[in-house]
Amino acid sequence: MQNFNNYDLLTTALRQRRQKLANLIDFPVILWSGSSISRNYPALKFPFRASSHFLYFAGLPLENAAIRLESGKLELFLDDALPSSTLWHGEMPKRAEIAELIGADADFPMAQLKLRSANAATIAVQDSLIQSQQSQMLDRPLTPSKSPAGIDLELTKAIISLRLTQDAASLAELRAAAAVTVEAHKGGMAATRKPQIEAGVRAAMESVIISQNMTTAYPSIVTVHGEVLHSEHYHNALQTGDLLLADVGAETSMGWAADVTRTWPVSGKFSPTQRAIYDLVLSAHDACIDKISPGVEYQEIHLLAARIMAAGLVDLGILRGNVEDLVAMDAHALFFVHGIGHLIGLDVHDMEDLGDLAGYEAGRVRSSRFGLGFLRLNRVLQEGMLVSVEPGFYQVPAILNNLETRIKYKDCVRWDELEKFADVRGIRIEDDILVTDSGREVLTAQLPTKALEIEDLVR
Amino acid sequence: MQNFNNYDLLTTALRQRRQKLANLIDFPVILWSGSSISRNYPALKFPFRASSHFLYFAGLPLENAAIRLESGKLELFLDDALPSSTLWHGEMPKRAEIAELIGADADFPMAQLKLRSANAATIAVQDSLIQSQQSQMLDRPLTPSKSPAGIDLELTKAIISLRLTQDAASLAELRAAAAVTVEAHKGGMAATRKPQIEAGVRAAMESVIISQNMTTAYPSIVTVHGEVLHSEHYHNALQTGDLLLADVGAETSMGWAADVTRTWPVSGKFSPTQRAIYDLVLSAHDACIDKISPGVEYQEIHLLAARIMAAGLVDLGILRGNVEDLVAMDAHALFFVHGIGHLIGLDVHDMEDLGDLAGYEAGRVRSSRFGLGFLRLNRVLQEGMLVSVEPGFYQVPAILNNLETRIKYKDCVRWDELEKFADVRGIRIEDDILVTDSGREVLTAQLPTKALEIEDLVR
Repeated sequence: MQNFNNYDLLTTALRQRRQKLANLIDFPVILWSGSSISRNYPALKFPFRASSHFLYFAGLPLENAAIRLESGKLELFLDDALPSSTLWHGEMPKRAEIAELIGADADFPMAQLKLRSANAATIAVQDSLIQSQQSQMLDRPLTPSKSPAGIDLELTKAIISLRLTQDAASLAELRAAAAVTVEAHKGGMAATRKPQIEAGVRAAMESVIISQNMTTAYPSIVTVHGEVLHSEHYHNALQTGDLLLADVGAETSMGWAADVTRTWPVSGKFSPTQRAIYDLVLSAHDACIDKISPGVEYQEIHLLAARIMAAGLVDLGILRGNVEDLVAMDAHALFFVHGIGHLIGLDVHDMEDLGDLAGYEAGRVRSSRFGLGFLRLNRVLQEGMLVSVEPGFYQVPAILNNLETRIKYKDCVRWDELEKFADVRGIRIEDDILVTDSGREVLTAQLPTKALEIEDLVR
Repeated sequence: MQNFNNYDLLTTALRQRRQKLANLIDFPVILWSGSSISRNYPALKFPFRASSHFLYFAGLPLENAAIRLESGKLELFLDDALPSSTLWHGEMPKRAEIAELIGADADFPMAQLKLRSANAATIAVQDSLIQSQQSQMLDRPLTPSKSPAGIDLELTKAIISLRLTQDAASLAELRAAAAVTVEAHKGGMAATRKPQIEAGVRAAMESVIISQNMTTAYPSIVTVHGEVLHSEHYHNALQTGDLLLADVGAETSMGWAADVTRTWPVSGKFSPTQRAIYDLVLSAHDACIDKISPGVEYQEIHLLAARIMAAGLVDLGILRGNVEDLVAMDAHALFFVHGIGHLIGLDVHDMEDLGDLAGYEAGRVRSSRFGLGFLRLNRVLQEGMLVSVEPGFYQVPAILNNLETRIKYKDCVRWDELEKFADVRGIRIEDDILVTDSGREVLTAQLPTKALEIEDLVR
């Protein structure tokens, strides 16, 4: 209810989205928003997050709501707040007002949904209580969202084909999230010298996001242990000589995400070894971004990063051998341990609730290769897709100290040389790239990547 | 795993707590911690919050864990992280290490729990998936935590009698939460003049909490519409003449809460009408705190606030009549619309998952009176209890514009006089008070309450 200036854009987009959906399927669809989930006691809830598929077609994060889509028409199902709740929550907009805002063709109380639920397809929400409500309402069992069947599968494929590319309304949101995320990273760099623990930098970054009335799109990673890929600890001391890796992104109130990583020296100055690896990761980052264009296989972007990383590590004396051979045997993946990126949209890993149905083109499956299996996106890039590009270098003890690894790669890795890079535990540089007709646009381009510029921002 | 310095205090407390429990019941107890809950897709979770009852006896927020308590002995059930998860989450402490930290007498993988589950009592956790796990493991249906039966009821009563009062370890945590909360409020006041919307002040406050590696104990209320009691919007503009009401509290990493409200003028200067009401609310706040002492009925504290508010509103010309009569007919509750406070502990409304079993002494039930029915605590105060004291004044349109209300209170309220106070939409002043042997200690006393001091802090 917060950004009335954008409602025209929103209702136009919603109308177009459901018209496109109607062009793809000929059965009714019901999408549920979900409900708030209790934290430590029933009345104390986690912040509500509506289902992304609901948000895509309904636009607003309405709690305990459902929409029914058929032939381009939108019906909203929502109960008006009880008068008694006004005391605690203030005057809420009425269903009819909300229906008008989002351009619904009709609106009903929730109790009416059952009467309109025959033969409808849906996608299972995350919340298990609402899942059983879905199943009850549709009078059939529901499969998990990553393995839909029948009309649910048809619906899932249709929604994927829509959500794969952005429209004007979603781009406006995604740009807003990107802009705030850029400021959050600048704020983090500027607040690095004062706090004693990682949490201090996290606070500086998230406060920028909160101040713009947004939320974090995912649990922030702000750590001097960049080699812990999904670290959610913030208690480590910041010490001179440490690199700080910050993977922090904003989500708008309508649910659209940004996903940005920077890595900077706590002292404001990279060591020579840190700088060498940083520049290597940045060269992969820049080359991958330059290659993004409609028609390009995203996996080729990943393999480009792999080759650049392998070649650079050979130049630095860490790997030895022929670059193509090293990549073929996944030697790059000892250090660049994840995929080059993923789709971004209403989810920071967009549509990951659908397993690989969104990320992988029909007929493709995850590779069993260590150096490819973590790739979340394997499609031909199309104009309007928003993807991340996020090469990295990590020294993960669980990988590098593994005896089998040591044996398998004994001829490829110069372990003695690697020891000289002990102060480079984890580096990642990540930006959000829109595929445009002429190539690409970096939505997060306002955030510097060059080592010298980063050093300048650290205060 | 973050504050090793406190482990001695913690393990001693845990041992004492389970010994006290063993003195009250003679059957085994299993308490589950719960699991992380997915937000928009399976891998993207809300921050994990362990069940408060689990935390009370296990000390640490362990995910997917259970403890079994019997005769003062503690058994920990937890699976070690899979080696594959080390890549993403780093090296995790092993079960055996955790067991030692918390002073467990034995530790087992989760699969062993079924073998040790016979005749055990429990309390249902919030998460519905883990609830079914509880039921399955105990091989019986589970009632909601607010309406336990049989040994679950006996267990609930025993846990309440322990958690009602604080020990050295819990007090250390509660003091830490209170201290950070005080700084958060000072930070909010100091950051009021610059931001254009409420979210800016919220960001300044929550960043203090995040920077200390704590979280918010409940959704922050930071609003110029203090009359919306549970407002969770932060988009309103801050305008000269507005009062800003901030109800924000920290929660330590072990789960212990603080709960503090201050109300301050956006401009840094209360208007005469705002100042008059503020001073009235403060006089109720101070008088209620002064009365807190072991042996005092908490409901008497509430009624004291009601009388002070009624008397003050008569003095200001808003109410008319005899104070006792006004309170008897709940005229004070037209403006002071909630209870004077509640228990604070591992939950900000401590043990509210147990309905009124914790808040209300055995045999007592909620009053049907509007002026008493919202009281969350109705017990004789004991040394070691931590309670909030939070009188307030609100002009809630849903109450004051209600025709029945207008008729019922037509002789008590001078509606024309009230109009002069239109710039006082909501004021609350809330502190956290420990009942001590000699009376009380205000844990949040470092945060000023006096109008002039508050004005000085607003920047």
